[in-house]
Amino acid sequence: MIPFNKPYLTGKETKYIETAVATGKISGNGVFTQKCQQFFEDTYGFKKALLTTSCTDALEMCAILADINSGDEVIVPSYTFVSSALAFVRQNANIIFADSYTDNPNIDADKIESLITDKTKAIVIVHYAGIACDMEKILEIAEKHNLIIIEDAAQAIDSYYIFKDGTKKALGSIGHLGAFSFHETKNIISGEGGMLTINDERFINRAEIIWEKGTNRSMFFRGEINKYGWVDTGSSFLPSEIISAFLWAQLENIHPIQEKRLKIWNKYHDELKNNENIDLPVIPEYATNNAHMFYIICKDLKHRTELIKKLKEHNILAVFHYLSLHKSEFYASRHVHGELTNSDHFEDCLLRLPLFYELTEAEQQSIIEVINNF
Amino acid sequence: MIPFNKPYLTGKETKYIETAVATGKISGNGVFTQKCQQFFEDTYGFKKALLTTSCTDALEMCAILADINSGDEVIVPSYTFVSSALAFVRQNANIIFADSYTDNPNIDADKIESLITDKTKAIVIVHYAGIACDMEKILEIAEKHNLIIIEDAAQAIDSYYIFKDGTKKALGSIGHLGAFSFHETKNIISGEGGMLTINDERFINRAEIIWEKGTNRSMFFRGEINKYGWVDTGSSFLPSEIISAFLWAQLENIHPIQEKRLKIWNKYHDELKNNENIDLPVIPEYATNNAHMFYIICKDLKHRTELIKKLKEHNILAVFHYLSLHKSEFYASRHVHGELTNSDHFEDCLLRLPLFYELTEAEQQSIIEVINNF
Repeated sequence: MIPFNKPYLTGKETKYIETAVATGKISGNGVFTQKCQQFFEDTYGFKKALLTTSCTDALEMCAILADINSGDEVIVPSYTFVSSALAFVRQNANIIFADSYTDNPNIDADKIESLITDKTKAIVIVHYAGIACDMEKILEIAEKHNLIIIEDAAQAIDSYYIFKDGTKKALGSIGHLGAFSFHETKNIISGEGGMLTINDERFINRAEIIWEKGTNRSMFFRGEINKYGWVDTGSSFLPSEIISAFLWAQLENIHPIQEKRLKIWNKYHDELKNNENIDLPVIPEYATNNAHMFYIICKDLKHRTELIKKLKEHNILAVFHYLSLHKSEFYASRHVHGELTNSDHFEDCLLRLPLFYELTEAEQQSIIEVINNF
Repeated sequence: MIPFNKPYLTGKETKYIETAVATGKISGNGVFTQKCQQFFEDTYGFKKALLTTSCTDALEMCAILADINSGDEVIVPSYTFVSSALAFVRQNANIIFADSYTDNPNIDADKIESLITDKTKAIVIVHYAGIACDMEKILEIAEKHNLIIIEDAAQAIDSYYIFKDGTKKALGSIGHLGAFSFHETKNIISGEGGMLTINDERFINRAEIIWEKGTNRSMFFRGEINKYGWVDTGSSFLPSEIISAFLWAQLENIHPIQEKRLKIWNKYHDELKNNENIDLPVIPEYATNNAHMFYIICKDLKHRTELIKKLKEHNILAVFHYLSLHKSEFYASRHVHGELTNSDHFEDCLLRLPLFYELTEAEQQSIIEVINNF
């Protein structure tokens, strides 16, 4: 059986967990949490990084920091994981769902402006498959309407947007706030896990407070205040050091992991590009590829269903996602902005192929052959 | 240096983490999560147990399940950790703070009824130091006023309430809902971590949905529905399997851990009980002792400050907590129910002594001697 995904130990995960226990601290915000955060800030240029227990939790922090309250509108793509919208629903936002491009699941930047009203407070963009949204267009819209941009970069670690002047910026470092995932299916993993990134400095102090259950504990430990107490809303957003120690071992190996994933991604692309029955991912010129995901686009739902079945007959597990959120049981009756046909198209036709560090060349070859012979 | 707390590996924690990775699943709700939950349900009689990333998150689930909305009032003791109140603030509740007993930090059951209004929806009780609140009185009040009881059992694993008829029930299994913590300072640990317990069956289905990001994924995996989608509010409340695997190793050793802690607790009690300068914990006849914490009550703030200093001179770290929540920067202006003098007394006078599995007899003896010679 070739699974769709397989988590992988780089080698030092459990050693670092033992180190954390031996140092006497395994609750949140310990040495490994700080090492990970420092690495992310230094490597990708985030002004501040805070690890969280999940990307959902990082998005909830974004919703609180963006001061989303009852009646505020937040624009979110429909073709995304439920958390991209859910985190804002917890702050009682009205979600306004946006459509994808025709040839790319990312939010269609040309369709955002028509959804903006005087109640709009933020735009959540999702860098699907780690491929950048059209950030220059989106930044322009946000600036014009004074909106907060939240990058749902769940899949976008180690991926970049290239500005027209040639400068490159890491995804998650461009909007006011960003959120990453270290869920087991991601490039860098801790089972469940996430990270908030802050690029607008005015949010940093409050983020630390919200992260530590509404207390100013971080300031206390830096010696900036004499005692700490309850000063704001918040939650226990910070992960156990057990999670951070695991993540640190993964981060030490980010280069070999990324190299291997890109090799797998490129082989899929090379060997499937002449298959006329399917479409392949389109990478816009402003985007880099972090090899988070390899997907194909089938002709229609029937085609995809049959291909999944054929792959399963060969003991290969390929999976689809997402169900358009605007049609979900929870949101259908609240969504009043008409059909989102591109989102529905990807819901029906997109198929994700196995892509993980320990996928062998022979396994990958067999997957490619089943698809090309279908 | 004798630390206040020291986390401890029972032996199989990292082995089980490796097992989880090898099985191919380290995201939430995997084999170890289910083993832990089953153990808790079987051992303590919870109708349903769901692991969470923290006790705060379990309390947030309680707030959502209790349908707390803007304007609802929730009664919470003031002498508690911020999360006991914060989780309900996230649902926009008005917190009504209650006082402790004179001789016991638990909520004074005789003072609850005067705080109830027609807006009151729930009572949060905290079993401080794992010692039961007066549950029969509290159950009677809740029934009379049709209120939901939420047991903040953060410190109360393996502790019981003894009813007048002699029956014993585990803490966290008595109210409608309960919340536990596996923070590094607790008896059973995973660094950060928690658990929701559900004793009123009408909450079980919705709890599973809220736990899995508002989706009916759990029902899907049990084959009860054909596909899963977004049906409710929620969050990513479930922990990584890395956390659950660690916790499982701890749970396998709960008996030796509890035995050792009780031995330490009893030695403190025996050797400090004749010290006339301090008061010791009072365990009501309806409560058992899970040896979560050993605390002493100093005469006043000055006495406690000097004792902490003296202990520090002997390289012993003893700590105090909590700051009365009704006086916090966040809540002081909202609290209109007068002075809570017992809460303030414990804030000033309670001192926690080191209590952890690997505390040696010689170390404990030195702590006792410093206190008795002071």
